Amino acid sequence: MTDPFMQAAIAEAKAGRVEGGIPIGAVLVHDNKIIGRGHNQRIQKGSPCLHGEMAALEDAGRLPAAIYRECTMYTTLSPCSMCSGAMLLYEIPRVVVGENKTFMGEEALLKSRGVEVTVVNHPECIELMEDFIRLFPELWNEDIGV
Amino acid sequence: MTDPFMQAAIAEAKAGRVEGGIPIGAVLVHDNKIIGRGHNQRIQKGSPCLHGEMAALEDAGRLPAAIYRECTMYTTLSPCSMCSGAMLLYEIPRVVVGENKTFMGEEALLKSRGVEVTVVNHPECIELMEDFIRLFPELWNEDIGV
Repeated sequence: MTDPFMQAAIAEAKAGRVEGGIPIGAVLVHDNKIIGRGHNQRIQKGSPCLHGEMAALEDAGRLPAAIYRECTMYTTLSPCSMCSGAMLLYEIPRVVVGENKTFMGEEALLKSRGVEVTVVNHPECIELMEDFIRLFPELWNEDIGV
Repeated sequence: MTDPFMQAAIAEAKAGRVEGGIPIGAVLVHDNKIIGRGHNQRIQKGSPCLHGEMAALEDAGRLPAAIYRECTMYTTLSPCSMCSGAMLLYEIPRVVVGENKTFMGEEALLKSRGVEVTVVNHPECIELMEDFIRLFPELWNEDIGV
């Protein structure tokens, strides 16, 4: 059974797909509650910065440092250097990653800084990305600066 | 004489200060032209992600990877892990830093990944930050997750 928070991140990724966007979603969890959720907004908002994790952080809004330090980020895809950097800035101590088969982010950097990284490799996360990359390789490459 | 691009970044920082925001600004430069500019939007937009550099990237909008790889980021303050991560994502090869006296960002990480980091330590950048930190230490700490 899928963790309900990963399920919520997957729901965000699917919402992005329905909008014609890149299907990556994330939720920020504090004290067993979702306090921020979002999905990649490159296509929808023309945004180079609103990856799924960044959209979830924006949705959560301004938070005291003490809250971030008790949070877990759930993201459907291994976090890139920007999203990993955001987690390091706010010292988010845990990230649960839907998959790292289609893209390997900065997991090693996160671990080297003490972040607990759990990789689920959920079939639904992999399928969402494989489909998107097959259909729109140029959009995907743009999103990861390739 | 101050580099005109650093001057433009300082103008962004001052625009932020006039708005009551955190006085950090940035411009993204390509082919000797400013293609994106912005300043920290924590206070103005309640944004945890729109640091100066991120605001400049958002302002530049969606760009092909090849353009980013020919860009220089000018920022009034040493870039935090989030903004450094964004530069690494898009492989921006050069960053000119207004100052790193009031905050030392991820310059070592950037250099270790091959980014050319030039630190100006411009008196105006230092003064803007020292004034802000003295007046609003809690807002500044929030911005760097402290």
